[in-house]
Amino acid sequence: MKTQMKKIGVVGFTPATTIVYYREIVKRFPETFDPQMFPEMTLDILNLHKVHHSATDGHFDIFIDYICHSLENLKKAGADFGVIASNTPHMFFKEIQARVELPLVNLVTATFDVIAKTKLKNIGLIGTRPTMELDFYKIPFQNIGMKVHVPLLEDDREFLKIIILKELSKEIFKDETISRVNHIIEKMKEEQHIDGIILGCTEFPLFVKEEKIGIPAFDTIDIHVDAIINFMKTN
Amino acid sequence: MKTQMKKIGVVGFTPATTIVYYREIVKRFPETFDPQMFPEMTLDILNLHKVHHSATDGHFDIFIDYICHSLENLKKAGADFGVIASNTPHMFFKEIQARVELPLVNLVTATFDVIAKTKLKNIGLIGTRPTMELDFYKIPFQNIGMKVHVPLLEDDREFLKIIILKELSKEIFKDETISRVNHIIEKMKEEQHIDGIILGCTEFPLFVKEEKIGIPAFDTIDIHVDAIINFMKTN
Repeated sequence: MKTQMKKIGVVGFTPATTIVYYREIVKRFPETFDPQMFPEMTLDILNLHKVHHSATDGHFDIFIDYICHSLENLKKAGADFGVIASNTPHMFFKEIQARVELPLVNLVTATFDVIAKTKLKNIGLIGTRPTMELDFYKIPFQNIGMKVHVPLLEDDREFLKIIILKELSKEIFKDETISRVNHIIEKMKEEQHIDGIILGCTEFPLFVKEEKIGIPAFDTIDIHVDAIINFMKTN
Repeated sequence: MKTQMKKIGVVGFTPATTIVYYREIVKRFPETFDPQMFPEMTLDILNLHKVHHSATDGHFDIFIDYICHSLENLKKAGADFGVIASNTPHMFFKEIQARVELPLVNLVTATFDVIAKTKLKNIGLIGTRPTMELDFYKIPFQNIGMKVHVPLLEDDREFLKIIILKELSKEIFKDETISRVNHIIEKMKEEQHIDGIILGCTEFPLFVKEEKIGIPAFDTIDIHVDAIINFMKTN
């Protein structure tokens, strides 16, 4: 039983997601380490809206600076490794990792590692617009001949962006929202023949259920937390 | 509307309590500040059991060092002021505040300030054994002629200590535990004539209800969070 372990540093973006990371790390920790222990951890929680405006204005440098500064804060607070607790900022993962000394556990790589072991061919992906429209999620899959599909209609992608920002991140779950998200996945199955789906936003797994959609669904936060625990075990 | 604000640093002891602080600060923040903002915050979460053993062995210096080190971590991570997110460590508040540069918002002082404005005379207090048996909670009240009472029987105080450590901090709520806590309060009303009670542990307010016990109950975390928001408003 390992009792000395690395201290985790978490950059948080929204309160809801940050709490999910915190809860899940604490929950899985005793299964692997001393059950009497809580993990030592530092969380640095950003102001999403400050980040959001600079990103949508195209000021990605401000966005990246803000995250790097937070990771440097975590290092100063004694963290041995870092985690960016959100899908979208992983669009800048390479730039960020190049700039900070703290080793980071990559959510996209962790998700890829899990799906790469399956026999799936056409993976759906829902999340924010950058998560869906940029290449950072698609490239690793393309490299091994898997294809990543996002909703075909801009209307649907815009809808997902809006509900993440205005509803899900505030823990608001409307019936009509849940129903439309499930409908978007249904269309992706019919039109793009997806045989699995990446739920690239913390709240989707709360209402997108494998037994209902009939294909495997990958909860990126769940996968990320497993990778974090694994990193602590092996480092 | 204030948009520039102090960054909060929170020293967390148990996951359950730390999440309550985080959630409550986030929830009350938009009522006071820009509703579009989340508060920037750093949390440093300790390993309770490491702290607990050194404290029960009488190694208070290790306990105090551990908390001071955490507050220094928070300062390095950019916090402008600090909060110790638990009642018991406030037994060392003076020593800790004397050693760290970060200004701290004191939970006991905040609780005293609220109760001092009431006309209550005999305040009950339930919490861990140090919280109940040492003087740090009692002194400010004694100074203004209010009396603080703790359960008379050592058996009852030991029971409260055990359930906080083994059940409540792990979010386990047994019917017989809830019933005995309420019975202890009932006895304090009858024998010590308490006319109010300080709930000096995060989980008590979840099952000790004013309408049931018939006297005002003071939720120390709730009061502490109000004091934190107030500190941000006025500093």
